[in-house]
Amino acid sequence: MQLVYFDNNSTTPVDPEVRAAMVPFLTDYFGNPSSNHRLGAQARNAVEQARQQVASLLGTQPERIVFNSGGSEGNNAVLFSAAISRPEKKHLISSQVEHASVLEPLRFLETMGYEVEFLPVAANGNLDLARLAGAIRPDTALVSLMAANNETGVLWPLEKIAAICREKKVLFHSDAVQLAGKLPIKVEELGLDYLTVSAHKLHGPKGVGALYVGRTAPFHSSVLGAGQENGRRAGTENVPAIAGFGRACELAADALAAGTYQRVGELRDRLQRELRDTVADLLVNGEGMPRLPNTLNLSFKHCSSAGLIQDLDSVGLLVSAHSACQSGDLDPSHVLRAMGVTEPYLHGTLRISLSRCSTEAEVERFLAVLPGLVSKSRKDFAW
Amino acid sequence: MQLVYFDNNSTTPVDPEVRAAMVPFLTDYFGNPSSNHRLGAQARNAVEQARQQVASLLGTQPERIVFNSGGSEGNNAVLFSAAISRPEKKHLISSQVEHASVLEPLRFLETMGYEVEFLPVAANGNLDLARLAGAIRPDTALVSLMAANNETGVLWPLEKIAAICREKKVLFHSDAVQLAGKLPIKVEELGLDYLTVSAHKLHGPKGVGALYVGRTAPFHSSVLGAGQENGRRAGTENVPAIAGFGRACELAADALAAGTYQRVGELRDRLQRELRDTVADLLVNGEGMPRLPNTLNLSFKHCSSAGLIQDLDSVGLLVSAHSACQSGDLDPSHVLRAMGVTEPYLHGTLRISLSRCSTEAEVERFLAVLPGLVSKSRKDFAW
Repeated sequence: MQLVYFDNNSTTPVDPEVRAAMVPFLTDYFGNPSSNHRLGAQARNAVEQARQQVASLLGTQPERIVFNSGGSEGNNAVLFSAAISRPEKKHLISSQVEHASVLEPLRFLETMGYEVEFLPVAANGNLDLARLAGAIRPDTALVSLMAANNETGVLWPLEKIAAICREKKVLFHSDAVQLAGKLPIKVEELGLDYLTVSAHKLHGPKGVGALYVGRTAPFHSSVLGAGQENGRRAGTENVPAIAGFGRACELAADALAAGTYQRVGELRDRLQRELRDTVADLLVNGEGMPRLPNTLNLSFKHCSSAGLIQDLDSVGLLVSAHSACQSGDLDPSHVLRAMGVTEPYLHGTLRISLSRCSTEAEVERFLAVLPGLVSKSRKDFAW
Repeated sequence: MQLVYFDNNSTTPVDPEVRAAMVPFLTDYFGNPSSNHRLGAQARNAVEQARQQVASLLGTQPERIVFNSGGSEGNNAVLFSAAISRPEKKHLISSQVEHASVLEPLRFLETMGYEVEFLPVAANGNLDLARLAGAIRPDTALVSLMAANNETGVLWPLEKIAAICREKKVLFHSDAVQLAGKLPIKVEELGLDYLTVSAHKLHGPKGVGALYVGRTAPFHSSVLGAGQENGRRAGTENVPAIAGFGRACELAADALAAGTYQRVGELRDRLQRELRDTVADLLVNGEGMPRLPNTLNLSFKHCSSAGLIQDLDSVGLLVSAHSACQSGDLDPSHVLRAMGVTEPYLHGTLRISLSRCSTEAEVERFLAVLPGLVSKSRKDFAW
């Protein structure tokens, strides 16, 4: 059975060209970049080429890029870095709808004597910028606000947030794991201090990510040891994955230039429109807000997410309920709770996330099946 | 030119069977293990199979294994974990010859008010166990001592150290990155609390490692976020690398069972013996101590490491001066300094590290060339 994979916000398949960029570094060019012989030099060159490719996608210079093991490490590194670098500042600002890898380090810092303000969001997922500005205090070390929500795709205005933070002389970090590769990013123009990206969300490999660290931003390495990454991240560089990440960024830039994600947005809009037309009691979470073009978050009243996901899977259609990282949990999404989605809808949520590989035919297969499964789920649902 | 790669303590080529175990998880089986659909389940199964393979190599149960991004992260995680978990205990014990990913976190903890005792070593690299026992205090949180030195291959008696720590009720961590796969390890019999291993030192991929965490050992996740690894390491699992690591452990266990490293030890011994016979003013660092079978650390009086490495490279023979992680540095090895190697020898050090792929013919090619290059280096050396 040909699968329809609409769970790209969880992870994406590695592009065949990315795989081709990686495999030689597993075997033929397997050197350690720190080695002073030809295999070391080849590996070093691969890492530096990838650094240029990542920097280019983000609109910055290679020396601003620190490779690490992925988005979660990146987010942790920035939050603890801000705490360590500004020990006299014990206040942090974030939001209620961040990824767990932002929320959990902040909760840990609370246990260490930090005060954290988790800003609420509106019903459509919007952030109140006046409230953000008012929350900044002289002892605020950092503002951490995501670029695009992983569940709803809702976008926040990074440039405006960065301007507020700059005016108030507060560091600004954005988790852009879901944004990178789907919409253009120009970090230097945005004027933020830290940006987190991850390769496996943009058809690169798992196990590698990068941080943008601004020229004037303090940074404390999350892994201490030898001097890799200019002392900003110890550990032997994951050369094959880094090489693949670089190639993935190049391919993502090509896709953006070719307008691929406009096409993806049209597919998403068609899904949304036709489901709206055929299914009653349906919430489109984040509707009316600027959103990632690939993401559609739906709550079906009196439905079971788990049941729908299983029924869809049985006919080869793969989606998720919310963040994959928490899908083992039975708890519904903290993002939708913060948006005030009510109980009758909360448990019947699907996150449908397309990719640049998604096709009209896949959307049609999905549309042909989902309304019937929703009706079935509503009948089964012991409300 | 066919290369002779004698720098396996820096990194090893990925075994073709390991690569074969990895590649399907890049493309066909690319799911996120947290996803509740068939691709998620396939990825979860791969991770759990690998956990069994790693546990089996180390002589423990799968639930004691935490996957992470590699040895440096593993060492950092244990050291900070001990500090966080035992906040009332402000004393730590380690040695002067540890890897940078142990030394640097400890130096950071010193800046945070911890007292760290870095035990010295004897001229042959031996550790004084009576001195270790005497150094343990009521406020000692952790003892961290490596299993096998990455530069000299010198082995320390983990079982005896573990017994001392257990008697004094102190946690014991060992960095076994260089030991794993080269000699048998039975962690449960050793009775230690934490053990660090890394895949890329045993013909697995870069970017993945594992920690053994004992049943009663406190542990604080080094990356906070979603609940992966039973809450012990957040971040989407690096499925292809983990699958490769598992297969690499299986192959390493097979090689150990087949006595492959006895053969490697004989090759190393031949190198040592014949170089001793042909080259004057030569130190074999760690001589007389139990050592890893693959490692030969030599200091040639009045020679330049950098020059020798370059000359060897030009004829296709690849070795290093010391830890690859620091080979960008001009500073000589902190390990050899701690062993009291004097200046005339210190700067002429080579670390030759074989693997299970090394052959008699490679050793002969090396022996045919090195003595002449040493003579040349001595003539060139502006002493």
